[in-house]
Amino acid sequence: MQIAYILFDNVTLLDLAGIYDPVSRLRTLGFVPDLKWDLCAMDETIMDGYHLAINVDKVAPALSGYDMIIVPGGLGTRSMMRDRQFMQWLRSAAGVRWKVSVCTGSLLLGAAGFLEGRRATTHFEQYDTLQPFCKEVVRERIVEDFDVITAGAVASSLDLGLYLCEKLAGPKAREAVRQRMDYRAEQ
Amino acid sequence: MQIAYILFDNVTLLDLAGIYDPVSRLRTLGFVPDLKWDLCAMDETIMDGYHLAINVDKVAPALSGYDMIIVPGGLGTRSMMRDRQFMQWLRSAAGVRWKVSVCTGSLLLGAAGFLEGRRATTHFEQYDTLQPFCKEVVRERIVEDFDVITAGAVASSLDLGLYLCEKLAGPKAREAVRQRMDYRAEQ
Repeated sequence: MQIAYILFDNVTLLDLAGIYDPVSRLRTLGFVPDLKWDLCAMDETIMDGYHLAINVDKVAPALSGYDMIIVPGGLGTRSMMRDRQFMQWLRSAAGVRWKVSVCTGSLLLGAAGFLEGRRATTHFEQYDTLQPFCKEVVRERIVEDFDVITAGAVASSLDLGLYLCEKLAGPKAREAVRQRMDYRAEQ
Repeated sequence: MQIAYILFDNVTLLDLAGIYDPVSRLRTLGFVPDLKWDLCAMDETIMDGYHLAINVDKVAPALSGYDMIIVPGGLGTRSMMRDRQFMQWLRSAAGVRWKVSVCTGSLLLGAAGFLEGRRATTHFEQYDTLQPFCKEVVRERIVEDFDVITAGAVASSLDLGLYLCEKLAGPKAREAVRQRMDYRAEQ
């Protein structure tokens, strides 16, 4: 099980951390011992929306070899949608089994063409922006449609992380991770 | 209003991000326009518990000039408690108005002597470890006692972030940030 986190400048750190924390625990708690992941971007270092600098693991690797890509959101999504090199790279994930996003990350999945014919969601202020890229914008916290799983605004990243725990390792794993994190939100 | 985030190897990324996201929005939403913060550590780059590398803003700055320090938790807290240089640096925050931690970050506040005579909390599996450092371990999600605010396991970082939003800018600011994040957890 190999996951690629897709990073870029002006990403929202909590979009990443809210998924990455519960999903990574699948390995440390022993539910998915062979779980591996890479932080991937077009540059060696990316800055979040407040200039926090993260050094990534892999620069623009071919994404076709991964089982899942996870795309966080952030203000940077708007310029990335128009970045031909970035979009070309992202499209290398076309055959990946699961394409996942949180918040405005779905705009990047959309611009890559991955949402054609699919139901999807995004940040509650960006429903209209997402509309042209998908079959239907759904005003729910998490929307799964075949190979695409999208989620809402930043705090839904934790719900999405736990949703992925269940998908990858079942409901007992999800509950074990939730308890470990002491997460109490309704989904 | 100047905040120092105290980072170290094997920190938990979501402990940081869950506070940093809502608190940073106080500036972008205009509630605390002069809000500033630095990511601080003993080295230029720190690794989270899964080898994600963050470049910090300041290496071991004197902490006495800040209005608030925020200490995330993580497995790294146990070795940091025994790291004389790190602890000496952390103690430079003795006179800082607010000393804040989430999860096992309270063990570092404790080892620095900041919890003497104070009520405090930590990760639910570490109550016994925290006990010797404070007057009383309180099994609540967020505990404030004079200059110290401590919180529970990793998911409580978001609750603590919103708690700090209210402390720094009032209940309307807190609610505006919560809505913007679409955070729905009870506290």
